[in-house]
Amino acid sequence: MRIALALKGLPFHYMPVHLARNEHLTESFGNVSASRLVPLLKDGDALVHQSLAILEYLEETHPTPPLLPADAVGRARVRALALDIACEIHPLNNLRVLRYLTGPMGLSEDAKNRWYRHWVETGLETVERQLVAQPARFCHGDTPTLADCLLIPQIFNAQRFECRLDHVPQVMKVFEACMALEAFEATRPEKCPDANA
Amino acid sequence: MRIALALKGLPFHYMPVHLARNEHLTESFGNVSASRLVPLLKDGDALVHQSLAILEYLEETHPTPPLLPADAVGRARVRALALDIACEIHPLNNLRVLRYLTGPMGLSEDAKNRWYRHWVETGLETVERQLVAQPARFCHGDTPTLADCLLIPQIFNAQRFECRLDHVPQVMKVFEACMALEAFEATRPEKCPDANA
Repeated sequence: MRIALALKGLPFHYMPVHLARNEHLTESFGNVSASRLVPLLKDGDALVHQSLAILEYLEETHPTPPLLPADAVGRARVRALALDIACEIHPLNNLRVLRYLTGPMGLSEDAKNRWYRHWVETGLETVERQLVAQPARFCHGDTPTLADCLLIPQIFNAQRFECRLDHVPQVMKVFEACMALEAFEATRPEKCPDANA
Repeated sequence: MRIALALKGLPFHYMPVHLARNEHLTESFGNVSASRLVPLLKDGDALVHQSLAILEYLEETHPTPPLLPADAVGRARVRALALDIACEIHPLNNLRVLRYLTGPMGLSEDAKNRWYRHWVETGLETVERQLVAQPARFCHGDTPTLADCLLIPQIFNAQRFECRLDHVPQVMKVFEACMALEAFEATRPEKCPDANA
């Protein structure tokens, strides 16, 4: 979401919600959003949650520069790539899932870390196969799309958890192409306003 | 996907791919789709995977009847609800994840079933809160949308795994409203062409 806002040059006010402190479960956040999920975009009276719904909303309300190709087949390919990350990697590795594994499921820290790496590594392999089948500077074509906005944060996560990345060279080429752009560089995780919280 | 095709009155040829038999991992399927994920839509030369990308593609190429509202805020709400199911419930409970839990993670069948029910029950609770906040005949408004197309199959899964559903009365009202429509009734899981395979 921060990447898309940066690519579209949209100013925003960042309000941190600390998942590790369960701030998303508090009544005050529940009063703001019935979903109690983050990230959450507030645009005037509109509230949108779910990263990909936020990106589609930004695309519809601020279409320039476009983050989806003009043709239906290209749009479908970009959305599928974005969903490969949003549905096949991210949900398995978010904080509440990791907590449930080491809590009620009784797994060790080590097993949890193996779980994390497994889904990142196999998920990125799925992305890699598609990028190799239709190679380009970015995930799709020569400008960034929704797929790049979701892929790059996942690469930072992968590096943090010491996942293998040598099996996805085309993904890493795209990562480098993205990081050469100011919008991606300025929104690196460590530059997030609450990175040290 | 079958529900959306039925709602839009689009004819299709159904080709079963048996996950339990690992048919999606075979070379012949890999040659068709680089993602190796199902469902997969083939429309002329176009190949689209990821349920939600398929639904968006059908919506763009066959806009009548619409499965997204006309306004950006409504569209965002429908997409967020659809993603609450596609990202917060389904990925945690699909076959490869359940297999990984009882295989490499060494969990028991009983623990696996608790895991399944936990994510269905908490995920549907997230949907319920949003439906209660803005109650309607369907997930959003008085015609079915992408959100209903993803919600209904999840209710059938929930029933099959004996999940609690008494805590989500508004979800169940929407379920009944959907099942009163021919497109939903004709695509019940047990009416799937390979239901008994």
